[in-house]
Amino acid sequence: MEERTETPIGKHAMYLALFGPEEADSSFLQNLTRSGCRFCTGKVGAMEMHKIVAAIETAAKKHGVIQSGIYRETHSLYHAIMEGLHGVTRGQLQLGSVLRTVGLNFAVVRGQPYPRDNEGEWIAVALYGTIGAPVKGLEHEVLGLGINHI
Amino acid sequence: MEERTETPIGKHAMYLALFGPEEADSSFLQNLTRSGCRFCTGKVGAMEMHKIVAAIETAAKKHGVIQSGIYRETHSLYHAIMEGLHGVTRGQLQLGSVLRTVGLNFAVVRGQPYPRDNEGEWIAVALYGTIGAPVKGLEHEVLGLGINHI
Amino acid sequence: MEERTETPIGKHAMYLALFGPEEADSSFLQNLTRSGCRFCTGKVGAMEMHKIVAAIETAAKKHGVIQSGIYRETHSLYHAIMEGLHGVTRGQLQLGSVLRTVGLNFAVVRGQPYPRDNEGEWIAVALYGTIGAPVKGLEHEVLGLGINHI
Amino acid sequence: MEERTETPIGKHAMYLALFGPEEADSSFLQNLTRSGCRFCTGKVGAMEMHKIVAAIETAAKKHGVIQSGIYRETHSLYHAIMEGLHGVTRGQLQLGSVLRTVGLNFAVVRGQPYPRDNEGEWIAVALYGTIGAPVKGLEHEVLGLGINHI
Amino acid sequence: MEERTETPIGKHAMYLALFGPEEADSSFLQNLTRSGCRFCTGKVGAMEMHKIVAAIETAAKKHGVIQSGIYRETHSLYHAIMEGLHGVTRGQLQLGSVLRTVGLNFAVVRGQPYPRDNEGEWIAVALYGTIGAPVKGLEHEVLGLGINHI
Amino acid sequence: MEERTETPIGKHAMYLALFGPEEADSSFLQNLTRSGCRFCTGKVGAMEMHKIVAAIETAAKKHGVIQSGIYRETHSLYHAIMEGLHGVTRGQLQLGSVLRTVGLNFAVVRGQPYPRDNEGEWIAVALYGTIGAPVKGLEHEVLGLGINHI
Repeated sequence: MEERTETPIGKHAMYLALFGPEEADSSFLQNLTRSGCRFCTGKVGAMEMHKIVAAIETAAKKHGVIQSGIYRETHSLYHAIMEGLHGVTRGQLQLGSVLRTVGLNFAVVRGQPYPRDNEGEWIAVALYGTIGAPVKGLEHEVLGLGINHI
Repeated sequence: MEERTETPIGKHAMYLALFGPEEADSSFLQNLTRSGCRFCTGKVGAMEMHKIVAAIETAAKKHGVIQSGIYRETHSLYHAIMEGLHGVTRGQLQLGSVLRTVGLNFAVVRGQPYPRDNEGEWIAVALYGTIGAPVKGLEHEVLGLGINHI
Repeated sequence: MEERTETPIGKHAMYLALFGPEEADSSFLQNLTRSGCRFCTGKVGAMEMHKIVAAIETAAKKHGVIQSGIYRETHSLYHAIMEGLHGVTRGQLQLGSVLRTVGLNFAVVRGQPYPRDNEGEWIAVALYGTIGAPVKGLEHEVLGLGINHI
Repeated sequence: MEERTETPIGKHAMYLALFGPEEADSSFLQNLTRSGCRFCTGKVGAMEMHKIVAAIETAAKKHGVIQSGIYRETHSLYHAIMEGLHGVTRGQLQLGSVLRTVGLNFAVVRGQPYPRDNEGEWIAVALYGTIGAPVKGLEHEVLGLGINHI
Repeated sequence: MEERTETPIGKHAMYLALFGPEEADSSFLQNLTRSGCRFCTGKVGAMEMHKIVAAIETAAKKHGVIQSGIYRETHSLYHAIMEGLHGVTRGQLQLGSVLRTVGLNFAVVRGQPYPRDNEGEWIAVALYGTIGAPVKGLEHEVLGLGINHI
Repeated sequence: MEERTETPIGKHAMYLALFGPEEADSSFLQNLTRSGCRFCTGKVGAMEMHKIVAAIETAAKKHGVIQSGIYRETHSLYHAIMEGLHGVTRGQLQLGSVLRTVGLNFAVVRGQPYPRDNEGEWIAVALYGTIGAPVKGLEHEVLGLGINHI
């Protein structure tokens, strides 16, 4: 019996958020699927954090990355999103209220990162894009990652 | 006169932190140098945040990414490191004091991300690795990115 | 001369918030009054923190737990509420802005917790209820307590 | 087939932390066991947060509330402890570093709070005690609660 | 060749915010100009943080303290404002959302605080005024200072 | 009967911290005493926050600004110090743990800021100095103010 190898779902999610499924290596996506991961990607621009949360949750449910009827899955994803947003906001979970806006690519990857079966499934949320004043060009890159057991 | 293209120093730094200079595409490193960026990479494991700060500052000075005699360069790098650590710690800049430890790859990239000359140089600090209990295996992935003008 | 015994106003406030004056032991309420405490209870559901603050302040003034014309009493209560909300929000004082809502029972107890007279009066604000997505059922319990001299 | 009723594991954990298993109603403990919950209680005094984390993790493993060989259980408990400590510290997860110390009773309760089976098990960590200067008597009450899916 | 003396731009900015250009010593303003500093002052009252950010940025651009077409100058000022607001809000960058409002005098000073030329220019943002409930009189003093290289 | 005028204890405390009792206007100190304020000043350099707290508390007790035997006075001062340190640290109450150190002048002023007698006494803690790397010269100015009812 072959033991499962480790699957760095955070690294995979960040790679997807940085490059998008279009630019990503074709073998990368095949391997991701072969290792049993479910994933989705998307884009969201907002001055309000709750729109980012909603966009990611909606995408994850629509693509079957989480089950929409089960609260524990939503709870797990919610905390992973919040943790990713800490990387994006770096200190205070605020955007428009402190006069800044973001444009983000996101990727959600769900899989079994650990070789042992009883560690079960985990979920990773990666965010990459720009943050800045609500004026085009006055912005720089940001990113974040949240990981949780599910 | 050719205008400089945009250089996503944050994306480049994160890519280096995720894959290391060894795994990175050979053309990636050539392009990074060709676009005028200076960079360095390294590893640090610690339960104390100040050791991470010191390791990155030392590497950046040793490889000429920042000038050691100039406070404004250290100040700029310091804040970029702090911002990257917000992504790693997701809420409270603490490690051993809340019984967790990290093992991180880091990359520092300095360059001109904007086409216009008067935007000058900026610095990006990317961190990727694991966080967890001070027991091998009880850990998951983390990452963070900080960017500042220099 | 009999010395006053210690009165754990925080424990009393939390007990009231957990069980409400209806479910509370009848002797509990008698003892609370006998020990010289003033108190009030109430309920508030909101996606905006300022509504919770306003609901508690209004109840405390209406029931004579604080005097409405004196700023130092409002100041003391305000900080006790903020501290209680830290327990509820666990990291960032935000609700709707990060797509979550709360339904809370609150209790405010004012009394003399310490045996020595010169320690004067203190105020405790306890909160107990649920936090979650703005969808019925997608929620779990939360609570918090703030204490301040008044 | 009878549907399970809701089990407020947070309220149960807080009740245990406030009163201890000795003072608690005898029927309370019977009902807690009957509803399928596993739980433990303990005490810890410390100026360092990592000692509190360690004390609770050790107690929870020793009493079989979580399985010590499984990272996802430790991860779940760890975040519940951190959330409980937010209520205790109200703003910054720090004790001795800002010259304060705590003496806490804790309770950990694991059970199924939701009627539907697929919501699975959750864990609650409740903390109640005092915080103050490292001088006897210069202290007031604090408490906190963290809840997580497990 | 005379070396430049140190110029405490933070102290100067705070002095201006505390007393305003009207009350300030006449020699103070002359010395500030003579030491090569550019500065501006203003007032802003708000329940929303983004209005404070906008008021200070607008004043600094209008009075030539920063150049409006250059992102790195806006970026530097933005972070200095955020740091000043940490002093004002003391824990959470929030005003109206937690039912409080501010009335602030601000001062922005740009100059060379260090004797060595290669340390270049830095910017200081000082804030002084009152914070409180949105009711006249229910308020106390607050202040903050942010400093950044520019 | 003459009504008391407003006494901006925060402004007075900041002025003392910025200039020290030596540089302060002689009439300033006379007026401070005449308006019924008690105050003290001091200096502290540290990489550990608890040393700053201890230095200020010790000075305030030694100079009779607060009464050492009464917890409510220590509690009030403690929170004012913490609030002042938020201005100094701007985001995370940490110094040496994130590789930075401070050298601070402090001033504590206790008095009646409001004209109405029933608003009673309040306390202001002002801090001014430098923060930076633990290397001489690699530092910039910081300040903070905390105010509380006492």
